[in-house]
Amino acid sequence: MSVTVYRKAHFNAAHRLFRSEWSDEKNLEIFGKCSNPHYHGHNYELEVGICGDIDPETGFVVDLGWLKRVIKSDVEDRFDHKNLNIEVVEFKSLIPTVENIAKVIWHILRDKLPSRYTIEVKLYETPRNFVVYTG
Amino acid sequence: MSVTVYRKAHFNAAHRLFRSEWSDEKNLEIFGKCSNPHYHGHNYELEVGICGDIDPETGFVVDLGWLKRVIKSDVEDRFDHKNLNIEVVEFKSLIPTVENIAKVIWHILRDKLPSRYTIEVKLYETPRNFVVYTG
Amino acid sequence: MSVTVYRKAHFNAAHRLFRSEWSDEKNLEIFGKCSNPHYHGHNYELEVGICGDIDPETGFVVDLGWLKRVIKSDVEDRFDHKNLNIEVVEFKSLIPTVENIAKVIWHILRDKLPSRYTIEVKLYETPRNFVVYTG
Amino acid sequence: MSVTVYRKAHFNAAHRLFRSEWSDEKNLEIFGKCSNPHYHGHNYELEVGICGDIDPETGFVVDLGWLKRVIKSDVEDRFDHKNLNIEVVEFKSLIPTVENIAKVIWHILRDKLPSRYTIEVKLYETPRNFVVYTG
Amino acid sequence: MSVTVYRKAHFNAAHRLFRSEWSDEKNLEIFGKCSNPHYHGHNYELEVGICGDIDPETGFVVDLGWLKRVIKSDVEDRFDHKNLNIEVVEFKSLIPTVENIAKVIWHILRDKLPSRYTIEVKLYETPRNFVVYTG
Amino acid sequence: MSVTVYRKAHFNAAHRLFRSEWSDEKNLEIFGKCSNPHYHGHNYELEVGICGDIDPETGFVVDLGWLKRVIKSDVEDRFDHKNLNIEVVEFKSLIPTVENIAKVIWHILRDKLPSRYTIEVKLYETPRNFVVYTG
Repeated sequence: MSVTVYRKAHFNAAHRLFRSEWSDEKNLEIFGKCSNPHYHGHNYELEVGICGDIDPETGFVVDLGWLKRVIKSDVEDRFDHKNLNIEVVEFKSLIPTVENIAKVIWHILRDKLPSRYTIEVKLYETPRNFVVYTG
Repeated sequence: MSVTVYRKAHFNAAHRLFRSEWSDEKNLEIFGKCSNPHYHGHNYELEVGICGDIDPETGFVVDLGWLKRVIKSDVEDRFDHKNLNIEVVEFKSLIPTVENIAKVIWHILRDKLPSRYTIEVKLYETPRNFVVYTG
Repeated sequence: MSVTVYRKAHFNAAHRLFRSEWSDEKNLEIFGKCSNPHYHGHNYELEVGICGDIDPETGFVVDLGWLKRVIKSDVEDRFDHKNLNIEVVEFKSLIPTVENIAKVIWHILRDKLPSRYTIEVKLYETPRNFVVYTG
Repeated sequence: MSVTVYRKAHFNAAHRLFRSEWSDEKNLEIFGKCSNPHYHGHNYELEVGICGDIDPETGFVVDLGWLKRVIKSDVEDRFDHKNLNIEVVEFKSLIPTVENIAKVIWHILRDKLPSRYTIEVKLYETPRNFVVYTG
Repeated sequence: MSVTVYRKAHFNAAHRLFRSEWSDEKNLEIFGKCSNPHYHGHNYELEVGICGDIDPETGFVVDLGWLKRVIKSDVEDRFDHKNLNIEVVEFKSLIPTVENIAKVIWHILRDKLPSRYTIEVKLYETPRNFVVYTG
Repeated sequence: MSVTVYRKAHFNAAHRLFRSEWSDEKNLEIFGKCSNPHYHGHNYELEVGICGDIDPETGFVVDLGWLKRVIKSDVEDRFDHKNLNIEVVEFKSLIPTVENIAKVIWHILRDKLPSRYTIEVKLYETPRNFVVYTG
């Protein structure tokens, strides 16, 4: 039996894609307008999926109220209305592509959730570009 | 080769989450406002996925017209505009969490579909809370 | 100059449509399955529009943070996870059709907002049925 | 007869809300986390509505291909992947609230479109906050 | 008091834009790839708005079940899975632009609805191009 | 580690479902109104998923700008505003069901992408009918 429950959340943030050891020309070539030194930003839409068994007593895989609070305290409060490059410590040495942001969120949640659960992180950078990270 | 066809459907229903053998306090502690004895309700959005081979004659995995009629007669007509706790027999002794509703729908469809197909049930309780059940 | 700012919110509730002075047959004839005595429910999606001038100092028509808190305290906290017929006083003698719910919300907000603003309430009962009420 | 044709577009940008003549405390009090000096950002979704008569020869109110190109050159190319406060000249002395961004876009389009048309600008800052500006 | 109730519907159809009295070159110049002689097609999404008073007995502006049946019989059954140019009589001598399709639907509904109601037709040709026709 | 990046695209096309070796009656029986000889059409919404490793230098699984250009040149330019049965060579002898269209797109992309990537094609024929093809 496989059942996964999902909870959506969102945060709005600024970022830029660049490698400090590359020239401006190389950054522009690889990252295009996403390397704008003045930053740009997105409404990130997040879907967190938790896969496990249904508890026969409660009918829950996981208490979604608890999951909502964890996502709020550990993801939204740290990422929302922030400049990811400057203000979120994980991106001091990691480029905040949508792939890497999803990976960072997955690891944050992995540390908070019992190991019997598997975790799926879906992150929309725009309605047309998104990522699924499953560890 | 793996190909899955999906059909969306929906139903609107009332429900509450509670266990009769628990006290009101325990129900409130575990289920919060979802345990309201006067019920609340949702627009449930359902996506049924059927995985199988493409029939080389028709180009279909399954006749979506037939699937639509099965979902209508066996799910929508039984669940739509109903009180799940009182009027849907499967929830006489099963708490109608979104996990359990998805599981019940999966079993209903499993009984109707040839065993060569695998089935996936995605059920949205709200645009922010949903479940995928794959048996 | 006309500028309207909008804020979305939502609540999940149970309801039924019926008139106590009508027979069950007449209620069923007029309201169909919506008259189910055991109730059914919806995820109501609400869009509140406030039309006014842009404050040249703040660039705001209205402080959306304040509006969000008003909608939360005066609409969501009173309607969410409730049985509208039984638990929301305005519907003791008013049928909770989507038209009437929108009208009730409009009057709640009218009482909270300065008269220089005009108010628009859009309320989705389902993704296919909705209402706009403008007073 | 009234007929309005709409075209959607989008741009992703960074911004912050603040008044330079106010203290940091006052900016924080009025604009909250939107005043973050390191910026944050959004996926702005834009709907441009053009109201006029249907040309009996073409069946068009306006050539949507032409409108798409105008929106691209005069709005998207100037706003997309930009820091609105720093890189878009209209916001040198105007706070880039969603109200003011909509107003600026309306005036840009007003200058490009024949006066026989009326113009409506709907701008989503997030899926939950948006504005309609009609001049 | 102004209250408008809306009902969504949809139909899938083929069409092409061209004027028979124009050359192929002129049709291509004005209508671009929409003039393809082999046709192309769309999922048309329709929102019908009916503005009137709330009936104090029923709480309805209009019986949405009745409206749904009228839209089905007079719009969907005539337009769905059809080639608009060939199979829908109104477009024998009228180019099926989204503007003209909306106008035709508005007139169909105007003939069916009591004159005390005003009617609004919103028609999406694609998620990015749409029209509102209000007579 | 599993990470999949997705890019959305769309195209509008006409099609019909029929087998030339079958009688009109058999085509109507199997394909219903989808066998209309005058064609009908859809707005096809496409999501292409590419699964691979995150490049530690760029933070990308694949350059989404490159992927966008490939989808444009090899899918959109060939399918958009076309009659699939007549103008797209793959459907000369293959019925353009949504299953088969997804399969054709998957093979087009498989030929363009390095073999280290796995590919997932999700194709919506309507908002209610869609397919996932994974090879």
